[in-house]
Amino acid sequence: MKQINGGITAPKGFYAAGVEAGIKYENRKDMAMIYSEKPCVVAGTFTSNRVKAAPVKWDMKIVDEKGSAQAVVVNTGIANAGTGAEGMRICEETAEEAAKQLGIEKDAVLVGSTGVIGAQVPIEKIKAGIAKLVAAKDSGTAAGTDASKAIMTTDTVNKELAVTVEIAGVTVTLGAMSKGSGMIHPNMCTMLGYVTTDAVIDHDTLTELLKNDVQSTYNMISVDGDTSTNDTLLVLANGMAGNEPIKKGTQAYEDFRAALHFVNETQAKRLAADGEGAMALIETSVFHAQSVEAARKLARSVISSSLTKAAIYGHDSNWGRILCALGYAGEDFDPEHMAIYYGNAAAKEQAAKGDFSKGMLIYEDGIGADYSEEEATKLLSKDEVYIWVDLKAGNESATAWGCDLTYDYVKINADYRS
Amino acid sequence: MKQINGGITAPKGFYAAGVEAGIKYENRKDMAMIYSEKPCVVAGTFTSNRVKAAPVKWDMKIVDEKGSAQAVVVNTGIANAGTGAEGMRICEETAEEAAKQLGIEKDAVLVGSTGVIGAQVPIEKIKAGIAKLVAAKDSGTAAGTDASKAIMTTDTVNKELAVTVEIAGVTVTLGAMSKGSGMIHPNMCTMLGYVTTDAVIDHDTLTELLKNDVQSTYNMISVDGDTSTNDTLLVLANGMAGNEPIKKGTQAYEDFRAALHFVNETQAKRLAADGEGAMALIETSVFHAQSVEAARKLARSVISSSLTKAAIYGHDSNWGRILCALGYAGEDFDPEHMAIYYGNAAAKEQAAKGDFSKGMLIYEDGIGADYSEEEATKLLSKDEVYIWVDLKAGNESATAWGCDLTYDYVKINADYRS
Repeated sequence: MKQINGGITAPKGFYAAGVEAGIKYENRKDMAMIYSEKPCVVAGTFTSNRVKAAPVKWDMKIVDEKGSAQAVVVNTGIANAGTGAEGMRICEETAEEAAKQLGIEKDAVLVGSTGVIGAQVPIEKIKAGIAKLVAAKDSGTAAGTDASKAIMTTDTVNKELAVTVEIAGVTVTLGAMSKGSGMIHPNMCTMLGYVTTDAVIDHDTLTELLKNDVQSTYNMISVDGDTSTNDTLLVLANGMAGNEPIKKGTQAYEDFRAALHFVNETQAKRLAADGEGAMALIETSVFHAQSVEAARKLARSVISSSLTKAAIYGHDSNWGRILCALGYAGEDFDPEHMAIYYGNAAAKEQAAKGDFSKGMLIYEDGIGADYSEEEATKLLSKDEVYIWVDLKAGNESATAWGCDLTYDYVKINADYRS
Repeated sequence: MKQINGGITAPKGFYAAGVEAGIKYENRKDMAMIYSEKPCVVAGTFTSNRVKAAPVKWDMKIVDEKGSAQAVVVNTGIANAGTGAEGMRICEETAEEAAKQLGIEKDAVLVGSTGVIGAQVPIEKIKAGIAKLVAAKDSGTAAGTDASKAIMTTDTVNKELAVTVEIAGVTVTLGAMSKGSGMIHPNMCTMLGYVTTDAVIDHDTLTELLKNDVQSTYNMISVDGDTSTNDTLLVLANGMAGNEPIKKGTQAYEDFRAALHFVNETQAKRLAADGEGAMALIETSVFHAQSVEAARKLARSVISSSLTKAAIYGHDSNWGRILCALGYAGEDFDPEHMAIYYGNAAAKEQAAKGDFSKGMLIYEDGIGADYSEEEATKLLSKDEVYIWVDLKAGNESATAWGCDLTYDYVKINADYRS
């Protein structure tokens, strides 16, 4: 597997565009399109929120019932959630308009929205935007970048990625773009994530791969504990790489899985690092748990703790808050027989093997360790803060990603609508 | 039932003190004592955190095994959590010293600690503090106030309360003091709460009453979603009012229960209103749910949502965040058949009966209502913000209390230890 330049237009046959439609923001791109020359197999995961935005309902129906699509139209500024029957009509009209202009069926068009909940999307602006998108669509790298910028809301950087992977001698490419900065506590996936690939793979295999992979990637990040109404992650596979169909139990499957995992994990970490107001990425790994589920729950509890997040913003080695967050995660463990370290990226694999010598021990078996506050403050002042928890109980592990809690998070969310 | 002046010293036979012991802070009271002339029946609820502070373990043993006590010694500044065997020894020495000076048994002394996790409590300062407390203890109102001030950490106001209630013709008094400003998301009770009463009541009856009552009071508040390692709520009943023993199924039981509920609800609301950095109390009531459990979970989800809390800090009527928080609470409901209002204290009973005419409708049956943003901003700018949710599904309801998320919350918690 090799990371290459570009994003969603990197795989064969994919086109993208990002344009200004003036939906909510002025002078910025706020509509994006993905289009594939050939129909795609599509797999998706969606928010677990009981309140689902209209585009989520629209996409779920297509993904579940049809399993194929050829285009995606996304707008930012307005989420089209809490919008009733009118919101559903707007999804349909959006798909109809895109279908007409692209010469495809309306149920081959997926839609996505992100922004404020409760307002209706201005359909005339959407239609005008679609005309611009169709005219601008291109298979070059710049078009993918445009699209990845058009889906941003409070994100400070666009997030795109492309990799190639050899699948039984054939080069397959995956591209991705994601957005999401607040209301991020995916219980399914993040706000909006799109992966394109030219791999040949069927709907069921792709769906199973995706649903498993989000458990250790998008579902392991949190910015603020709020699970959005709009979370959507879609993978579109147009089959143009011409590889042998990817089937479970083969090396090709493992290779594709590793590539998809790399793409999802990288994008998920970027979302956490670019959390609203965030100054630092917090990576928490729980090692030697009795089950993966327990490890995940414990790791997520630490990166979701407001007090831990605020302490890290203050570069304060207040490890009691880490211990406290582990304690209320709802998983059984023995606080008198476990350890907490500040870790680092380089020695994580070593730690997974039980060698924590490269970490800084801060708590073990019931009491605080004798560590240097000065050294700890240095580690906590970095862009990426690593917390390792050794449960000394089993062989399972999990990692979760979050960010610090800053004044800017409050600022951004106190006046998001204004 | 009648609210009267004072706090924990209001019931007959109770003494209190608050003194400066110099444990962590200078020039402020940081140790408190409650002492009763006669041994008390004691009931308690404690943190559900897997990591329990040493004083929590000490108290749990006494409350569960013995069910009686005569004194409580509390220190602030250091939580005595994450302190191993040494932490337990310090609890025992604290109780021993207090017992010696008060002329009672060491297992009649309950202890409490709040503050930073991980440091050891300086036992010599504690012992000197106990001597001061014993010398200063008094049954007057001022002594109760001193104690309620001594248990504060980041609280901005002390929280005490007293009521009298006629129990079968005999006047019974209840007094209370509580503290808790951050790390407040009780799943049992708040950080530290103490209720004194001169009622005659047995251990089992008092325990059952307390455990039921915290479900709708202390367990319904949240400041930051972090469940502390030290949460402790104790009720001490010394029987000096001389009433007939309170038994389940009698009017006396109902009268006492109402008084205890008023005390607990009032104190719990005060904790939420005085949450770290808070500018406003947020009260969310969910009406017409199919079960009390569902109503509680939904109400708690709203007051725990960082995004909702930040929007209220910004006086921004971003009701999509309320809807979103209801949606991810994990309870089933129909977003197309329900309503959300901004309410008020005066008309809450009316609302409970299904008359929402005094509320401002902001969302109903799938879409936003046509309300005045200006009026909404006025309601959201008050010290107390009321959110009513009408699920239109059943007859159960619940109320939860939280606070807004402000710059000051981040500030306080970014440098709490310094």
